[in-house]
Amino acid sequence: MPDAESGTGTGHADAGAAPDGRPLPSWNEGAARAALLRFVDAVCRPGSPHELPPDERIAVFAHDGTLWGEFPLPVHALFLGERIEQLARQLPGLRERHPFSAFLQDDLPRLHGLGWRGIMQLALVAHAGVPLEIYARQAGDWLAAARHAWLGRPVAACTYQPQLELIALLRRHAFTCFIVTAGESTFVRAFAPSAYGIPAHQVIGTCVRTQVQLQPGIAELVKLAQEERWNEREDKVRGIAAHIGRRPVLAFGNADRDLAMLRYVRAGPGPRLALLLHHDDGVREFAYDAGFALNPLDDALERAAEFGLQVVSMRDDWATVFAPAGSEVRLR
Amino acid sequence: MPDAESGTGTGHADAGAAPDGRPLPSWNEGAARAALLRFVDAVCRPGSPHELPPDERIAVFAHDGTLWGEFPLPVHALFLGERIEQLARQLPGLRERHPFSAFLQDDLPRLHGLGWRGIMQLALVAHAGVPLEIYARQAGDWLAAARHAWLGRPVAACTYQPQLELIALLRRHAFTCFIVTAGESTFVRAFAPSAYGIPAHQVIGTCVRTQVQLQPGIAELVKLAQEERWNEREDKVRGIAAHIGRRPVLAFGNADRDLAMLRYVRAGPGPRLALLLHHDDGVREFAYDAGFALNPLDDALERAAEFGLQVVSMRDDWATVFAPAGSEVRLR
Repeated sequence: MPDAESGTGTGHADAGAAPDGRPLPSWNEGAARAALLRFVDAVCRPGSPHELPPDERIAVFAHDGTLWGEFPLPVHALFLGERIEQLARQLPGLRERHPFSAFLQDDLPRLHGLGWRGIMQLALVAHAGVPLEIYARQAGDWLAAARHAWLGRPVAACTYQPQLELIALLRRHAFTCFIVTAGESTFVRAFAPSAYGIPAHQVIGTCVRTQVQLQPGIAELVKLAQEERWNEREDKVRGIAAHIGRRPVLAFGNADRDLAMLRYVRAGPGPRLALLLHHDDGVREFAYDAGFALNPLDDALERAAEFGLQVVSMRDDWATVFAPAGSEVRLR
Repeated sequence: MPDAESGTGTGHADAGAAPDGRPLPSWNEGAARAALLRFVDAVCRPGSPHELPPDERIAVFAHDGTLWGEFPLPVHALFLGERIEQLARQLPGLRERHPFSAFLQDDLPRLHGLGWRGIMQLALVAHAGVPLEIYARQAGDWLAAARHAWLGRPVAACTYQPQLELIALLRRHAFTCFIVTAGESTFVRAFAPSAYGIPAHQVIGTCVRTQVQLQPGIAELVKLAQEERWNEREDKVRGIAAHIGRRPVLAFGNADRDLAMLRYVRAGPGPRLALLLHHDDGVREFAYDAGFALNPLDDALERAAEFGLQVVSMRDDWATVFAPAGSEVRLR
């Protein structure tokens, strides 16, 4: 097996082209790659009838399952598992109790049974009372060291190489790229700058409620145990409007949760591109078109043609899945 | 009187220095200017013990009264006045009814009596049902043409020249500047790029609720008549955490509404600068330290020393107030 350690997830700065200058080298020739290059040419080539000024070149990406492997558990659930390990060392009584036991035993059916909101709500409770800045540092420290048990790689190297190349290509063409995620903003921000070169303020996610503490010598925000808003489905569209204030021209998602955002972007005037990643590669990653309990994609896949979405097949359209030095995955 | 038309509000790109290269030419020598230059040097000079990487160089500015004249009415209230004129032409019965009559007669005491939230709530109702993108265009079109009756200048030229210079100086030093405003995000975004060179997604403001309409052939957001969140006081701090995800190192405000944000920024570790603009210039602008009903500053001014805020006197610290060609103002 190749050395899985060498993929650091930080190759985003120059990942947009092969050494010979060919763009998107990890994308196979095909309809998806052609649509991407045609779109970038249409909106960026000087003199193109559809050329857009840079401030209108806005691209949005879902996160879990679009930029980063989400199966069998999204990265936030792995972090939560670590937190539950810590808690169980202090409170051994947790070891036998559901849902903690499901995390401690890597019991996937029971974990999937919690649903995405169940897992996220547990995560909010598990980190409640922690000042936001300390939480962000904890998440960053964990990510720098953690290994992904199912993918057999550092967690920080579970980003998709073709997407790093796409983000780099867009950035070279003066696009501003945002992550629009159902995951928690603060968590995704802990690695978005290093993993994708996307600044923290270009991450739009689920927000936790916070308490502002302003006392002599203290001025900080503390995480509460409840969400302020879930960022999924129509709320991704609202989140884009509230945060970006402009309709993006390119959107990339992978699930029903992203469908409203993909339709919203696709329906704007002029050239628009909305892409849906299909996890159909059971060899290099996981094939779960039959449905993934935490992030179903049945509806989006079935209605892709109706809504003008470009489906991207991981199996057929991607020459590489993860960073090159560790492209195999293994199930433990 | 000089030609007030020539101030276009678009001189931000090169407004940071005088022709001889002296920074902040519209700032008089004094404690405020010295504090700004000392701070920028401390966090940006290579080798400084407090040097910060660019992604930590985050500055936040309040809007009405900090970057743009707010007295006797903030710019959003002027736009609302225009909308009420339109409505009254269709529905003449409005002319005699409070609060519409107060707008139609420029009746300042009655307008101030509505309070800031009263005016904003009326603005939300007056534009309810309008798709967000059409509203943004209407606001931009109005701003491009409107004149400020009390300041005798184009509305688009009511920004403060010293602040344009400060934003340009910060940008030259790789700062990312955000507007954190109690005003409505969509409205302020209509002019933030042209007035300040600040992209729409770097404006954090009061959000209106929206309805997502996804039907065949239609995909848009429509403004509802209610706010989603007011962005003032502690909620400015929450807004910064939710949107930026990082504590800024410089904050500039002008009112009690900004005090929590100023304290939050000032209390962080390392060099921090929190500034409070004092409207004490009754000749070139308006002196309202006695209190402005729509945006009181009594508490902030009284506690400035306690919280380590640098007070900026418009009268003493600013050599120029508005863009040079039209620095006089007149009351009609």
